[in-house]
Amino acid sequence: MKNFAIGIDLGGTNLKGIIMEGDGSFRHLTRVPTGGQEGGTKVLENILTLIEKLLKKEGSSESCIGVGLGTPGFVDDDGTVLGGAENLPGWKGTNIYDPIMQQFGLKTTATNDVTITALAEAKYGAGKGIKNMVCFALGTGIGGGIVINGKVYKGSHGMAGEIGHIMVDPNGLPCTCGHKGCVEQYASATGIVNLAKMLAMKFESDIPSTLKRIALETPESLSAKLVYDYAKDSDPFGQYINEIACEKLAHAIGIIINTLSPDRVILGGGVMKAGHIILDTVARHIPKYCWQQLWELCDLVESELGEDAGAIGAAALAFEEIEVEVHV
Amino acid sequence: MKNFAIGIDLGGTNLKGIIMEGDGSFRHLTRVPTGGQEGGTKVLENILTLIEKLLKKEGSSESCIGVGLGTPGFVDDDGTVLGGAENLPGWKGTNIYDPIMQQFGLKTTATNDVTITALAEAKYGAGKGIKNMVCFALGTGIGGGIVINGKVYKGSHGMAGEIGHIMVDPNGLPCTCGHKGCVEQYASATGIVNLAKMLAMKFESDIPSTLKRIALETPESLSAKLVYDYAKDSDPFGQYINEIACEKLAHAIGIIINTLSPDRVILGGGVMKAGHIILDTVARHIPKYCWQQLWELCDLVESELGEDAGAIGAAALAFEEIEVEVHV
Repeated sequence: MKNFAIGIDLGGTNLKGIIMEGDGSFRHLTRVPTGGQEGGTKVLENILTLIEKLLKKEGSSESCIGVGLGTPGFVDDDGTVLGGAENLPGWKGTNIYDPIMQQFGLKTTATNDVTITALAEAKYGAGKGIKNMVCFALGTGIGGGIVINGKVYKGSHGMAGEIGHIMVDPNGLPCTCGHKGCVEQYASATGIVNLAKMLAMKFESDIPSTLKRIALETPESLSAKLVYDYAKDSDPFGQYINEIACEKLAHAIGIIINTLSPDRVILGGGVMKAGHIILDTVARHIPKYCWQQLWELCDLVESELGEDAGAIGAAALAFEEIEVEVHV
Repeated sequence: MKNFAIGIDLGGTNLKGIIMEGDGSFRHLTRVPTGGQEGGTKVLENILTLIEKLLKKEGSSESCIGVGLGTPGFVDDDGTVLGGAENLPGWKGTNIYDPIMQQFGLKTTATNDVTITALAEAKYGAGKGIKNMVCFALGTGIGGGIVINGKVYKGSHGMAGEIGHIMVDPNGLPCTCGHKGCVEQYASATGIVNLAKMLAMKFESDIPSTLKRIALETPESLSAKLVYDYAKDSDPFGQYINEIACEKLAHAIGIIINTLSPDRVILGGGVMKAGHIILDTVARHIPKYCWQQLWELCDLVESELGEDAGAIGAAALAFEEIEVEVHV
């Protein structure tokens, strides 16, 4: 029987698990509630139950090389959640590796959920065959995943890739991290909605803007999707917000290009459902923020894998990190 | 006889060459003029003559694994200089690898001069034993070297590490690269002198400043060393310039920390002769620009190797990249 890994994607709402072989083929996609509001112990319990379910479906754990897990926040080398997972109260401080070893005799490797999404894209999606790449996940915040020499780069303490907090304007908007002008305050879903709320009063144009009216009259109905629906429909206020969001994102991407000279930058996450308008606008602004030569050597593309990317990447991480330990 | 590599550091004034063994011990340090003003062909000729001299001193090329070269600018995978070496007219477009292979039968690997300095620091200097680190070389400009998993990271096209052009202020000072607000316009030797020239008129303080008087009366006598001599001697204008330069540098370092979460950031280059005043001021400002958790896991230190770092790093690069090719 072929070796397989268990891949688990810990989301704010659901835990998603798969059994995956080394070639990327997967089976037994299983979803259970995360139980995030019931505290860290409950989340861990639900993870253990999910692993049990998956192994039961598989029939045996004999060929299982281990468990890969993607979680919001950071995980240290011993498997303890260090923080950065503010939407999961009590998850910080939880040790993940020991209980899985105790209950199933399986090694676990865990890292940030965006990092594993980048790994999934690198191995089986928009980054397939690409040596050096960086993935920006434009969601509620902005997360990042870095692939160096075909391998996911987590830094020595599992915490690299905080590219949503690249400060693009030292006098800019206050960020949840305590600093100012982080790129996620402009180009995340939250940032886009905030920009629309903040700028609606000031925005002037000859062409009437329905989006502006919505932002003034029912700001609570705003979403990144709505802003982009209007932007794509030539609404001048929507287009104005798009320009600001994409220019700030281009600044951060330009810094990444100057630093790492990646072969490819991948844009993913919920905001990217808006599609080409973002790619096109960002690409237009990037030349202002990095060396032309480096930009010419770098593609800017959309992510390819859908919402299963997290679980796929988690299993891929297990193959990358756990198999190595066994054979060396 | 033990294997050795030839390491060559191509500087604006001198070519420096060594014979180095895998343990870092080196001999036959040789210096010849670069001949940069006589064009790229002459520079190449001088490199070939230097290799010849070194091999003559060694007596034989039998145990030579190859040549490592550090050069200003970028070099592609085939050994052709792509640019970024503006102070060496005609050097761009020169192929380095083929002539060395033809004349000596030796493989060559070349990369940016700051990158190899970082490699030297990583293997034998301030970064010894450190897995992930970034080196800022504060000289005429600001160069960068990145070490990932103990190996120098050049990117797929040999051009990564342009961290001197991280844009820390989109409305900032114009840079030679055509953009605005690159960190090297503030924290390089050139940047520091320019800040002193620009800000002397505006600077007000209760304590009289000799440096301000010099900047107003004989601006041509300013140097980064002079600014720092006064700053260390409690001159208020010198201290003001130091704060600006170090805060901008801290912004760029903060971005690097958020992105790569390095274990260590090394500051080197001529400006660092000023020593601890820079380390201390930068360290004070960094917390404003990155995640506290990541900064706590990162040291900020001064480079250890002196002016031979380039040649040492070049030879180390040869061991890293050429030996691998031979044995795999």
